[in-house]
Amino acid sequence: MRNMLPGVGVFGNTPAMRCYIPILKSCGLEVVALWARTMEEAKQMSEELGIPLFTTDVDKVLLDRRVDLVVISCSPHIQAHIAAKALGIGKHVLCSLPSGPRSRDTLPMVHASRYYPRLMSLMCNGLRFLPSVVKMRRLVQESGFVGTVTVCEVNVHYGSSGILGQKQPLKKAGCSPSYSTTAYDWTCDEAMGGGVLNMYGGMVVDVLSHVTGLRATRVQGLVRTYVRQTERVSGIREITSDDFCCFQMELGTDGACATVTLNSQVPGPFMQEITVVGTLGRLTLKGADLYGQKHDRVKEDLLHFDPSSLKDVEALGGGCGTGSANSMTITGDERNIEFTTTASSTSLTPNNPGIVSPILQTMPAPYLKGVVHMLECVRDAFQQVEEKQGWCPEPLADAANFEDCFYVQTVLDSVRTASRNKQSVKVVLTDSEPEPNPFLSTAMRRSTFSLH
Amino acid sequence: MRNMLPGVGVFGNTPAMRCYIPILKSCGLEVVALWARTMEEAKQMSEELGIPLFTTDVDKVLLDRRVDLVVISCSPHIQAHIAAKALGIGKHVLCSLPSGPRSRDTLPMVHASRYYPRLMSLMCNGLRFLPSVVKMRRLVQESGFVGTVTVCEVNVHYGSSGILGQKQPLKKAGCSPSYSTTAYDWTCDEAMGGGVLNMYGGMVVDVLSHVTGLRATRVQGLVRTYVRQTERVSGIREITSDDFCCFQMELGTDGACATVTLNSQVPGPFMQEITVVGTLGRLTLKGADLYGQKHDRVKEDLLHFDPSSLKDVEALGGGCGTGSANSMTITGDERNIEFTTTASSTSLTPNNPGIVSPILQTMPAPYLKGVVHMLECVRDAFQQVEEKQGWCPEPLADAANFEDCFYVQTVLDSVRTASRNKQSVKVVLTDSEPEPNPFLSTAMRRSTFSLH
Repeated sequence: MRNMLPGVGVFGNTPAMRCYIPILKSCGLEVVALWARTMEEAKQMSEELGIPLFTTDVDKVLLDRRVDLVVISCSPHIQAHIAAKALGIGKHVLCSLPSGPRSRDTLPMVHASRYYPRLMSLMCNGLRFLPSVVKMRRLVQESGFVGTVTVCEVNVHYGSSGILGQKQPLKKAGCSPSYSTTAYDWTCDEAMGGGVLNMYGGMVVDVLSHVTGLRATRVQGLVRTYVRQTERVSGIREITSDDFCCFQMELGTDGACATVTLNSQVPGPFMQEITVVGTLGRLTLKGADLYGQKHDRVKEDLLHFDPSSLKDVEALGGGCGTGSANSMTITGDERNIEFTTTASSTSLTPNNPGIVSPILQTMPAPYLKGVVHMLECVRDAFQQVEEKQGWCPEPLADAANFEDCFYVQTVLDSVRTASRNKQSVKVVLTDSEPEPNPFLSTAMRRSTFSLH
Repeated sequence: MRNMLPGVGVFGNTPAMRCYIPILKSCGLEVVALWARTMEEAKQMSEELGIPLFTTDVDKVLLDRRVDLVVISCSPHIQAHIAAKALGIGKHVLCSLPSGPRSRDTLPMVHASRYYPRLMSLMCNGLRFLPSVVKMRRLVQESGFVGTVTVCEVNVHYGSSGILGQKQPLKKAGCSPSYSTTAYDWTCDEAMGGGVLNMYGGMVVDVLSHVTGLRATRVQGLVRTYVRQTERVSGIREITSDDFCCFQMELGTDGACATVTLNSQVPGPFMQEITVVGTLGRLTLKGADLYGQKHDRVKEDLLHFDPSSLKDVEALGGGCGTGSANSMTITGDERNIEFTTTASSTSLTPNNPGIVSPILQTMPAPYLKGVVHMLECVRDAFQQVEEKQGWCPEPLADAANFEDCFYVQTVLDSVRTASRNKQSVKVVLTDSEPEPNPFLSTAMRRSTFSLH
């Protein structure tokens, strides 16, 4: 077992990235370089989170000798290109969802991951590593707890705490100054990959296929944008990304189906329920806990309650930064979580003691817990191999790879098409790049034809 | 105020009817005659519930001089004809949902209700009278609590207690002998009006339009039958009615929408949540209680908790039958309800003390409470007028009439078409009877054409 863990270079200053960095640090992975779109953003974040190097030059991070692992969470339309380039240079890549506004945007990273199979190329969907989801998958696919899967129901309310901070029609009190300056960014723009369907639908589609082992063959959906202007996005600017969507998927070939509702319009706490029903019973993931009931039982059983979640998150609070300045309190059920800052000044939050609060506003508890578990597995994967560039795939067997990601983005594309055309759409994975010049290719075909 | 309340004639021996009769009695309305499809069924039910006259002849009930009000809850494909005939004879009619397998089947009763506007012709959708729903409607339409309605979410799990008793794949312990004999009936047959979409989707569509004041203009949906054979329906017989459906409706013309999931496949308790979200906040009906939250509030408020429900239902238990033999205990939240029989023998349940249990298995608490409130309003409507045939429409202003019912059935038809054709369908109300001979009418049009 080696002692030296890889150095990390991070791309992006999204709220998700603000979660990843402290967790990476708490896992013992050093974050050595940060890239952001503008120099101000890069400087501010590197100071907040204590990262030595900050830049707006992609290559400066990628070519840094200390960087072995690249973590990407920035505007979706550039993620695939950074990921592909990083793999080409020989760096491991963790990329967050969504990986592109459209499925074809993810193709460069998919192809790169095929060319460099020995490099780590994984999606950062923490939900797959949530212990309840791990157990749910085992119960469905190995123990046959639910029998043959018939119906999946997913219901997510992102709540008024504002998973899309910018999009709340009313001014939010808890917003940190670093976010309030970004009045309009990619999250407001459908063409750049914003919207609940793209940002969170992907996680759900991925988890459903992971848990049930079934992939969507056909989809129909309804995608809507209700809030088009807010206090901070007004005048000639308009939000084009969706804030409500629901869609149905036909799963596999035996008639199973799934219905998914993603709603960022409902005031209230974050709420997520994933139910998988089968011929023998059902499993329900509520927050981070797993419940189950067979058809012949009168009451449901709590199959997994995650007591470790508290420990993990506290470890994160204590481990990242100097001293145990931030602690997270989980009160009552999983949904009510408060971040409390017990000391006024730490290296993590030198100028803004409130910055941890937006982290949990951005990433609900189950997702955050899952990411903690996943990044621990990333650490284990590197620790189990002595060779500097090597890693052991076994701890990360549950992770989504870039092929899974391509499937997910294809499903989301199909949902958008279905909503636009008001009819259901078959899910077809076409993993070749589109012809660069369709006229030319048609002309060529015609000329080839005339030879006969 | 008159003392003499109208006599009631009832049609059908459905589980719903087994709820109505004791409630009617507890409201002081005398049930004098009962019609059922077979003599055995009629005899058994009249003995169980103490009804003097039982018959299989529709006219014998309709022409009975003591009968002023007709309550119909039988196989949907014959309800409209009985309702139309009853109105023609001059009787008031309460008809339960669904009123037909298809919308065109309801046309006879719709037309009859237009011909006899002074007679009561109402649908028995208790949910409209549930105090929480009454308040919800007022808050949405009068107080502007949610602002402009944007999204409605409805989620119903009918639970393992078996709203479709016959359709449970495993044998149910609490089933009364009177049901276990009916191995295959209209609830198993899609063409006769069975299925969760028709039996319960109608209530939801009706309540949504009642609460929001918006009607569906376009729908898409997914209707599925997962359990095709059970212990009691096997061999060459197959269940064709759906046991899962989800559908989306575009509401009104301002872009509002609703998504509805009805699932009888999930083991567990009955669960119903109806959420109406708008630009200013949201309202959520959970069971029979109403919660609300504005966008600028941190927590949700309990806006209506129904303490009267317990009283009402106990009154029902005490009032129908001789003595207070049956009492209903509501334990904990609304979803856990047990019927306890404290005496072994009453006139209500002479041979089968367990018969009340299937009532609650059949009609979940919020529906049952709503029906109690509605039938109290029916009593008030008759009590406020001295004239024997007269009634006061005011207490029943919230009730759905036959026109509402026609709208509801049209929406359900459209959902079925949408599911079959895999594309969204415009909701068009066509309230004329279809041409009896399309060839003839085409020929006539052609001949008229040739005259010019």
